[in-house]
Parts: sequence; structure tokens; C-alpha cells
Amino acid sequence: MSSHDAVEVIIAKRDGHTLSDSQIDWVVDAYTRGEVADEQMSALAMAILINGMERPEIARWTGAMIASGERMDFSSLSRPTADKHSTGGVGDKITLPLAPLVAACGVAVPQLSGRGLGHTGGTLDKLESIPGWRAALSNAEMMAQLESVGAVICAAGDGLAPADKKLYALRDVTGTVEAIPLIASSIMSKKIAEGTGALVLDVKVGTGAFMKDVERARELAEVMVALGTDAGVRTTALLTDMSVPLGLTAGNAIEVAESVEVLAGGGPADVVELTLALAREMLAGAGRDDVDPADRLADGSAMDAWKAMIRAQDGDPDAALPVARESHVVVAPSSGVLTRLDAMAVGLAAWRLGAGRARKEDPVQAGAGVVWHARPGDPVVAGAPLFTLLTDEPARFDRALASLEGGWEIGSAAPAASALVIDRVS
Amino acid sequence: MSSHDAVEVIIAKRDGHTLSDSQIDWVVDAYTRGEVADEQMSALAMAILINGMERPEIARWTGAMIASGERMDFSSLSRPTADKHSTGGVGDKITLPLAPLVAACGVAVPQLSGRGLGHTGGTLDKLESIPGWRAALSNAEMMAQLESVGAVICAAGDGLAPADKKLYALRDVTGTVEAIPLIASSIMSKKIAEGTGALVLDVKVGTGAFMKDVERARELAEVMVALGTDAGVRTTALLTDMSVPLGLTAGNAIEVAESVEVLAGGGPADVVELTLALAREMLAGAGRDDVDPADRLADGSAMDAWKAMIRAQDGDPDAALPVARESHVVVAPSSGVLTRLDAMAVGLAAWRLGAGRARKEDPVQAGAGVVWHARPGDPVVAGAPLFTLLTDEPARFDRALASLEGGWEIGSAAPAASALVIDRVS
Repeated sequence: MSSHDAVEVIIAKRDGHTLSDSQIDWVVDAYTRGEVADEQMSALAMAILINGMERPEIARWTGAMIASGERMDFSSLSRPTADKHSTGGVGDKITLPLAPLVAACGVAVPQLSGRGLGHTGGTLDKLESIPGWRAALSNAEMMAQLESVGAVICAAGDGLAPADKKLYALRDVTGTVEAIPLIASSIMSKKIAEGTGALVLDVKVGTGAFMKDVERARELAEVMVALGTDAGVRTTALLTDMSVPLGLTAGNAIEVAESVEVLAGGGPADVVELTLALAREMLAGAGRDDVDPADRLADGSAMDAWKAMIRAQDGDPDAALPVARESHVVVAPSSGVLTRLDAMAVGLAAWRLGAGRARKEDPVQAGAGVVWHARPGDPVVAGAPLFTLLTDEPARFDRALASLEGGWEIGSAAPAASALVIDRVS
Repeated sequence: MSSHDAVEVIIAKRDGHTLSDSQIDWVVDAYTRGEVADEQMSALAMAILINGMERPEIARWTGAMIASGERMDFSSLSRPTADKHSTGGVGDKITLPLAPLVAACGVAVPQLSGRGLGHTGGTLDKLESIPGWRAALSNAEMMAQLESVGAVICAAGDGLAPADKKLYALRDVTGTVEAIPLIASSIMSKKIAEGTGALVLDVKVGTGAFMKDVERARELAEVMVALGTDAGVRTTALLTDMSVPLGLTAGNAIEVAESVEVLAGGGPADVVELTLALAREMLAGAGRDDVDPADRLADGSAMDAWKAMIRAQDGDPDAALPVARESHVVVAPSSGVLTRLDAMAVGLAAWRLGAGRARKEDPVQAGAGVVWHARPGDPVVAGAPLFTLLTDEPARFDRALASLEGGWEIGSAAPAASALVIDRVS
């Protein structure tokens, strides 16, 4: 590998130049080894955020991050693989019903997930509310479970794209998270290294999402789809609405319960719709679009796969879920129609109730969160419950209530219905 | 002081907003205390470099850096004070004759200087080639010498603008040196904290300077003049040419010798011209434009002040200066006129011969450097010496010769004369 100098690489990007393959390979490797210091990488990240990167630069950067660690290989499995990644939303429990549903359709789902930080929850945090369930699996355990059950949701090991792990922690404290080249390469380096055969990206758009406007979301989706496709992963993306939170719950145990309702054939219509839409993308990517996932929800096989998946990771799918010690009900002040429910307001309220964490090392409360009893367009009656706030620590209610304030409206006429799936990128 | 969050401040500047007074005060103070980390400040510095700062932001930033340390006060002196700052050039030994010259005119010169890094030399490195001379003075010693001799050139203590000291070291390794707001605030925070009554800025423009084009140099000069003026320091700036190196020498002892020639009434015409131009600015700023500095060069009083200044810091102005152990002569390959002599090429050659340092902790060679025997416009004769390279380590000649290559030209007609002082900003 050619040797470069950190300042040379920083200045090239600072001055708006395209980084060479050799510069990218060197700086990612040298940063992983500690030769390029955090303060140098953060300056480079800021220059990338402001000045951007060309598509080939992003691809090379992604490749360099993949090369920083190990790659997994599922080609020995008896079935094709498909995975999903969501850019993060409020009430986004879709992975929970989706993974067993797709497994029930004959496609293996190797879902490496993370914990939550800030106003969006983490899939592992949610599953950890199930008594006994464990997130950490060895690669051998993961392979065995994919073969036997067909679905795994577990913690990503330290071996995949360690450069990304280090860079993500740095971006988080240096105001350099919101760069499309860095977001796309972070997500795709892990998914490509993971070795999935097909991938669907759920790119969220709206007040509760990372991407507030659809144009930036589309750009992110296009960059990621191109990265996946070029790396041999059949990749598509759905742009989905995140101005309203998904379903009727945001928290940990309460989102598991809602997911189980979906697997039982019920659940909120938007959660069912998005689960099926993403399942169809995954099945198509894996060459199994002959199967209709709606049938597998209806015939109970998705629920069977869920229980097998939870049991394989030492969880008890039939055990009672934890319940918060304290609750507080917000009633509707007037009758009419709920015209607005802001995803960010709900997400912050759930976070402040203890469902999420402010710092990586913080614990989360299994029972904490927000339940909303109406979605935009639903009728509400004065005096009836509108929100139920849940936490183990009642001192948290005040700040959560403050987060909700201004986050919803009751009017006289139903708002125009808006599409949940805004667009598809392939 | 209001409390802020580093990421909030970084994102504000990243997204092109104006930082509030409270954000600036907080981030500079928190960085000095170590609460804002290096990787956060480097991301902010990159955002400032790319997105810029408004004049009031620069002024507040400068004020916050001044507030991070002590301020000196020369108001008890019996004479007015004036100081000079150069943005750095090749062969720029002007401080050496200038300080005693202005002192000989009745104005005290409290010159806090630095060491060299890279291709431009450092004033302290040059003076340290004088046997016995010491750069470190206490504040009390400095005051006493200003009163008795009228001129001090010494190392800046750690007490002035410690925020700048920390930030400058960071910028050096993160590709964030070349930001006008950061350059201007770095220079002016130290000069304002130093407490000089008047200040002239020698802003270099050209291939051997930090600022390659006159428009950026003018902008830097205007920002600095406004900062000084607003802080009550009578400040002017000269934009001066640095496409050709100053005088006939670049090094340490050899630049001291050239400076002594100027004080003796001789020396290269350009060094004399610039020394007098800057002296006149300083005298005007100090209210002493009734004195002509040329008279003080002619009557020997500037030389007397030089000797007193060197002796006051334990140096022997009459001792022989160190001489490099090895020399290598480059002869003119043809006869004609020297049409070009590139400041950067000469600066790099001197640096590679050992006159400058690559890292802060490196030593410099007192005798090393480059002597050029012609300036652009001078006739040259085939076979006669064009450059003399000096070093204690002959292994250095090859790289120095490579630096010089392409840095000069011999032609048949003299180039059009260009002005040394390009413009004045006040």
C-alpha cells in the first residue's frame, strides 16, 4: 500500500479534490491502525461532509472499510439469504416480524443489529426485553441457527468493518454524522462484509427520521443501492414515511408485543403493510417472489419461525413481557379527529421515559415507552386516553410530556391520507 | 458563561450559520480546559475554514483567545510601543535590524517571536546562532530591557493566549492552517494580549508565502487591521512581495550577518527598503513620524541599539558567528541575466540543508542555509557562483539541490521590476 500523509489527504478533500484510490485505502487503513489520529479523521470527515464525494470515491471508501475486517460467507447454507436495513425511525419494530416472516418463506435472514442511541430505538434493546434472550452469538452459532431456523437477529461482532465502528463513534461526537458518503459507506460496508445475498434498505423520510426531505433520502438510497449492486448484493430500497411513528407503540417490550400481534395476524395496518412490502423486496432479491408472505402470516408459519428464533437464542417467547412500574395517561382535550402526530415528538418522549439511552453505556428500561391510542385520521373523544406514558421512574414524566407538547393536533376533518411507501429505488 | 454542547456548535458552523457570542466564548474556553476534545475542535476548524466567519465572529473568537490567558501592559514605560508581525517568508530577517532601528528612534519594540517550522525560518532560531544569546526572558526582564535598551526580541511565554497555542498545534496536523479567520485570530490574539500600542503587519504574498494571491492576502490584512484597531491597537499592514526571497541569504547565522550589514549602513537594497518601510509604519503608529529611521541607520545609533539588545540577553554581538562545516557551490551554466528566483525553492533548499525543522522538537543548524549571489535582474556570468549551499551534513546537499531545480532561470533580458511593497492597508 502506498504511503500518504494525513494532512495531504485532508487538504485534498478540503480543497474539493477527488481522493485517489491509494489515498482512500491508506487513510482508512492508517486510521484503523491508529496512525491517523482522531483529530485528523474528524477534520477529514467534516471536509467530506461539506465538499462531498464522487460515487467512485464512496465505493472505494466502502471497500476500504470492508477490507479493515473479516467477511462472512453464507454460500454454504441450503437456502438463499436476504437482509434488511432501516435508517432508523420511531416505533420501527419491523425487523422483529420481518425476519421470521421471510424465514417462513424459505429465505434465510442474517440480521446483524445494533442498540439504540437517541430518539430511535434499537432492535437488540427491544428483543432483550424478552426473558432469557441473548444478543451475542458466535459466527458458528449464527450459521447453525440460520440453517435450522432460518432467521437470526443478533449483535454484530467486532470483526466486521472495524474501521466503521471506530469512525462511527468519532462522527457521533464531531457533528459529522449527516454526510451521505459516510452514512452510505457505514451501512453498506457492514452489510456487504456480512455476506448477505440480497438486501432491502428502508430509507426513512420525515420529521422523525435522519433524512428530513425526500430528495436527500433518495440520494442516499441511490448511493447505497449502487454500492450494494456493484458488490454483487442484489439491493433495492424503499423510501418510507417517518413523519408519523409506526404502529401504536414506541419502546421496547411494548414494541415486541405489537410485533407478536402482527405475527398472529393482527396488529396496526401500517406495520403490517410495511412488513409485507419489505418482505416482498427481500424475497424478490433472493429469487423467491413466487411466495406470498401474506399467506405465511395467515397460516401461522411466521409465528412458528418467530418462536423458534427466540428459543434458539435462549429466550422464552411465551413468557410475560416486563411492564413499567408507573404509567401516566394523557386524555384528549376535545373531540374530533387526530390530524397530526409527530414522530420526533413521540420518539423523544419514549427516549426520555427511559426506552432509549443518551450515552452508549446507559441501560434502557424494558417496560418504558409511549403508547398512542389514535393515529392521524382516527376519531378521538374528549376525555378518552390519547397517550399512555410508561416508565419505572415517575420523575421522567414531566420531560416526556414536554416532548409531546405541540407534537399532535385534534381537528375537525381527517387529513389527506399519505402513502407509507413513498418510492422504490433499484 | 452559558453552557453549550460541542456538537451543537460544530453543526451550527458546518451548516453555515453565524456562531453566537456565547457559543464562541464557550467553545474556546471549553477547548482550553480540555472539555471540548481535539477531534471536536478540528472538525469545527475545518467547518470554519470551508464556511468562513463573519467579521464580528472573528473579533469575538479573538477576544475569547485573549481571555484564555494573561495580558501584558506596557503603559508604565516612558516611551510608546510598537511591534511588527510578518506572516512569514524566505530570507525574512527584517525583525533583526528593524527592532533596534525603531528603538533608536525612541519607540520601544516588544517583539515576541517564534521558532521556524517548514520552509520559513524563525527569528529566534536566527538569533540563537549568536554565541550566548538567550530567547527566554521573564516578564520583568522584558520590561527592564524595554526601558533600558528599547528593544526586546524574545520567546512568547506560555501565558499569552494559551487557547491559541493549543489550537495552532492542532491546526498544524489537521489541514486547517489556511483559514483566514483562524490565521487572523491567532496572530492578533497574541499581539493584542502582548499589549503593544501600535502594530504593523507584514503580509507576504507570492510563491514563498502562505498567501499565494494578493486578494486573499489583502483580505487577511483587512481582517487583522480591523481586529487590532477595534482592540485599541493602532494597526496598519503592508502587503509585500514574497515571490523572490529577501536579501541574499536564507538560514540562521548568515541572516544575522546580513542584518548586521544593514545596521552598518549597507546590505541588500530590498532588505533596507522593507526595513525602512516597516519602521516608518511603526513610528507613525507610535506617534513618532517626525523621526526618519534612515538617519538612525546612517548615524550608527541603530547598530548601538542592536549591540545593547544582544548584550542584554547575554549574547556577544562581536563574537564570530558559526560557520557550516561543508559548502557546495552551484555555478551559472550560462551568461545572461537572472530572470527568476523562486522563494519557495530557496526556502525548501535552506530547510533541507538543516536551517529549519520538520518537527517542533528538531534542532536547527546555526550555520546551514543558502546564499544566492544574484537577484532577479542581476547579470550572471557562466562558471561564476550562483548559489552557495551550507550545511554541517553533506548528505543533505542532494535533496537541497533537487529543491532548487527549476527554481531559477537565466535569460537574455532583465525582467520587469516589480514592487516590493505592493499595497498598504490601514
